[in-house]
Amino acid sequence: MPYIPVAAHLPGITGLLEYRMDTAAPIRALTQFLLRGPNTLSQGDRELIATIVSHGNECRFCTTAHAAAADALLGDCSITEQIKVDHFKAPLPEKTKALLEIARLVRISGKAVTETAIQQAKDAGATDLEIHDTVLIAALFCLYNRYVDGLATALPEDPSYFNQLADRLVHHGYNRLPQGYDHLKK
Amino acid sequence: MPYIPVAAHLPGITGLLEYRMDTAAPIRALTQFLLRGPNTLSQGDRELIATIVSHGNECRFCTTAHAAAADALLGDCSITEQIKVDHFKAPLPEKTKALLEIARLVRISGKAVTETAIQQAKDAGATDLEIHDTVLIAALFCLYNRYVDGLATALPEDPSYFNQLADRLVHHGYNRLPQGYDHLKK
Repeated sequence: MPYIPVAAHLPGITGLLEYRMDTAAPIRALTQFLLRGPNTLSQGDRELIATIVSHGNECRFCTTAHAAAADALLGDCSITEQIKVDHFKAPLPEKTKALLEIARLVRISGKAVTETAIQQAKDAGATDLEIHDTVLIAALFCLYNRYVDGLATALPEDPSYFNQLADRLVHHGYNRLPQGYDHLKK
Repeated sequence: MPYIPVAAHLPGITGLLEYRMDTAAPIRALTQFLLRGPNTLSQGDRELIATIVSHGNECRFCTTAHAAAADALLGDCSITEQIKVDHFKAPLPEKTKALLEIARLVRISGKAVTETAIQQAKDAGATDLEIHDTVLIAALFCLYNRYVDGLATALPEDPSYFNQLADRLVHHGYNRLPQGYDHLKK
């Protein structure tokens, strides 16, 4: 039972973003730019960062949503399962693994990020901007996970909801859909 | 030494916000609305939330900056010192103390927020919107603290910098100052 009166048909973050649209607008804009904007990191890689952070924070709504989005973007469901256990053993490029390690450390604390972890990412070819965006995406999901669980939002009753949500996130991103466009959520 | 090349004269968050202005714009907008926008929580109370979270995350730049802003807004330097030790013993209204407790729990984890803590805030008169904003401000500073320390940004060489920054935050908020308006930072 959520701690504040969000719409019962909108689980997780979706109810919060409708509850307070003044704050939702910049949150959506930041997320759309970081996860879907032009970037040398693929959208799949950026969803992996969201997934590893949300999983570490034990935020079930966010983990399931972003793992489903990553699965759809990467066309391979085994990668998100693997990064939840040990991202270094996942079938991913060294650069992605090094950036996921930075994200994992950011989740613990900003102070947990080591020069060694940064250097490994740079050695694997990560640019300064990619490192910046990895840290900021990881930090953003530390916000999201606390927002979603700190207000005790509900999970959807039907787990197939996450497939529909992932489809929307992949094809329409993080912007708010105008009223009347609910069919796009399919 | 920061992990990415930010301007040497811009410590902490200030260099990051100039490094990537595409992401800075929505971050500034969210912060301006949450900390300076119309709200039944005072600006001082909102800066206390920023302070208790940043202190818990051991983010020196953010703690010093927001404690200085809170001190200026509240006209009493002892309150920020007290909330770093035990906010329940601070000379604050019960509602503020209950909201600071929620913020303290959000910092640990979204899942750490208890029904009891929420009920205590409601019993002390906190509205749903005040609880929402407390959780979101606390979550936002979990983002900021990780962003600032995860990229190893520098502290200012001169500690009086924080008095100037607090003066700017109190009088001009979190929006970016246009070029040529540096004198407003006084």
